Amino acid sequence: MVNRAAEQNQVVRFARIPRPGPLTADVYSWESRAMPELADGELLVRTIYLSIDAGSRAQLDDRSDYVIKAVPGKVLGSSGAVAEVVQSRHPHWQPGDLLATTVARWQRFQLVAPGRQLTARVNPADGPIAMHLGVLGMVGFTAYIGIFEVGRPQPGETVLVSAAAGATGSAAGQFAKAVGARVVGIAGGAHKCQLVKDEFGFDECIDYREGDISESIARACPDGVDVYYENVGGEIQKAAFAQMNDFGRIAMCGQLAQYSGEGEAAGPNLMCTVLKRLTVRGFLASDHLDRYQEFQQRATDWYRSGQLRHHATVTRGLENIHEAVNSLTSGHNIGKQLCQVADEPVLS
Amino acid sequence: MVNRAAEQNQVVRFARIPRPGPLTADVYSWESRAMPELADGELLVRTIYLSIDAGSRAQLDDRSDYVIKAVPGKVLGSSGAVAEVVQSRHPHWQPGDLLATTVARWQRFQLVAPGRQLTARVNPADGPIAMHLGVLGMVGFTAYIGIFEVGRPQPGETVLVSAAAGATGSAAGQFAKAVGARVVGIAGGAHKCQLVKDEFGFDECIDYREGDISESIARACPDGVDVYYENVGGEIQKAAFAQMNDFGRIAMCGQLAQYSGEGEAAGPNLMCTVLKRLTVRGFLASDHLDRYQEFQQRATDWYRSGQLRHHATVTRGLENIHEAVNSLTSGHNIGKQLCQVADEPVLS
Repeated sequence: MVNRAAEQNQVVRFARIPRPGPLTADVYSWESRAMPELADGELLVRTIYLSIDAGSRAQLDDRSDYVIKAVPGKVLGSSGAVAEVVQSRHPHWQPGDLLATTVARWQRFQLVAPGRQLTARVNPADGPIAMHLGVLGMVGFTAYIGIFEVGRPQPGETVLVSAAAGATGSAAGQFAKAVGARVVGIAGGAHKCQLVKDEFGFDECIDYREGDISESIARACPDGVDVYYENVGGEIQKAAFAQMNDFGRIAMCGQLAQYSGEGEAAGPNLMCTVLKRLTVRGFLASDHLDRYQEFQQRATDWYRSGQLRHHATVTRGLENIHEAVNSLTSGHNIGKQLCQVADEPVLS
Repeated sequence: MVNRAAEQNQVVRFARIPRPGPLTADVYSWESRAMPELADGELLVRTIYLSIDAGSRAQLDDRSDYVIKAVPGKVLGSSGAVAEVVQSRHPHWQPGDLLATTVARWQRFQLVAPGRQLTARVNPADGPIAMHLGVLGMVGFTAYIGIFEVGRPQPGETVLVSAAAGATGSAAGQFAKAVGARVVGIAGGAHKCQLVKDEFGFDECIDYREGDISESIARACPDGVDVYYENVGGEIQKAAFAQMNDFGRIAMCGQLAQYSGEGEAAGPNLMCTVLKRLTVRGFLASDHLDRYQEFQQRATDWYRSGQLRHHATVTRGLENIHEAVNSLTSGHNIGKQLCQVADEPVLS
């Protein structure tokens, strides 16, 4: 393994606040920099995959009150990367080792401090290395918390999942299925709906572009909805609330429909929460890191037994990262949206 | 005590579906009937006070999906009455005894079966007998469940209560205050706001008719809102959601603003539930009757120690019961809205 510390690094900065809608390249600026210097305990890693998250778009919007907000000039980041160690000043890591980290800057090379951040060893023999940004990463963990901390489906209950072809939705549905729930997805287009059933094992999938969404949910969920995993907002949210059963639980994960600067739509009338005694609960996975080990163990077991599938949509090139973000916000992706910054190492 | 079983009874029926807005007398019909016959274990009681509830109006609206719905021709009912026994075929009850029941028809005389329905003995020496339809009755119990089962305020936390001069709101605020929370009410008009502070002991009360409601809440709750007891819907709901603290709890009790046939307004955008990890939970007190004894004990203790005040707005005459309902839906009432059907007995 060649030590690349003598090369130049490349860094992506937030250049200007975007207009509503798809991002153009000039929202970012790309800049060359000297390679970072390692302190004791640190690793220099070559970024292979960067996670592209809902927040990647939402944080750029000066009108939103998203949980993170970027200001122009900032070096941007993601909820995770898979990377290869190129230089190590840490006794347990060697050049050539692969890792997944939950703190990742949009850079070709970056420093990782295994003691100060969640850093998992990645073994390519276990499955696709990008999986550690998907079902085995923070998005998988988010789905896990939404299902097992908030939704708590019982065997035989009906779980409805919006954005079902996306990273968290597809994982949430698979987790609910693994514990015996009947799982119905909502996705856009016949192709995605087919994948949600064939690839992710959902019992049904509703194409929200076809027909009346309320009627479609009622038809696909003849016993009503006990748990709704909510990731979209807007009309789908409204229709789903209306189909909830008494004592239903709604896990509020996000509202993809409003992350592209179009502003905030009104929510559903909430009288249903009284009449049906619903619990609507928002969550962020980062509040529940005490369950991360448990998640890793169970998700790995389900992956090995074939009950959990990984799927990613990959946009190649750090220079195309705005297209990776657009792929996510336009709902083009199936499973986890990634930006591939460098080739995967060839297994020897 | 004269046995009135030989008199005629009078019964109120639902005559026609009302137009939106205040009720007119012709929504009901009044009809004379023979007095009911008692079976073993039953009591014939003379109705003194009838509880007037949000449902008294909401159930008449054919467009609503309220938890109960009346059809024209039905004899109407309330969530409770205070009444005097005039004839008894039950070993523990004598003519002249006073009771509170949670099942009450809109009739001058009615049958009560103490074994089959919640029936509490009322002692006039303990305080106003109407209190058993207020802070010691089902509305008090509703507030109790909203605060202690759903909201769960901790000492020093800020609890915001809408419809604070009303029956459940005034009780909810007093319960939260009794366990050490800082309590801020929302009510309509300077007079009500003064009463909410002076009579019910709230720390602050916001007049929603004056100024911008969001700014008023922010000013009255400088540390944000930890628990919101929601009873109104509409713009106040939206403003309150926006002022919630991280991990806040919203107890959804009702939406008074939409019970008069004006239809359902949109709710707040729910992205705040994710970003602040809010729990929004609807409840009906009737799901929690296992806590009724505990409630009665604690509420009685608080009343005796002066920490809990009873207040009622009384409309006199069964023939004026539509005005009693209008008093409630127009927000004219302070504390519990009642219809007084007969005089209180004179204590000898």
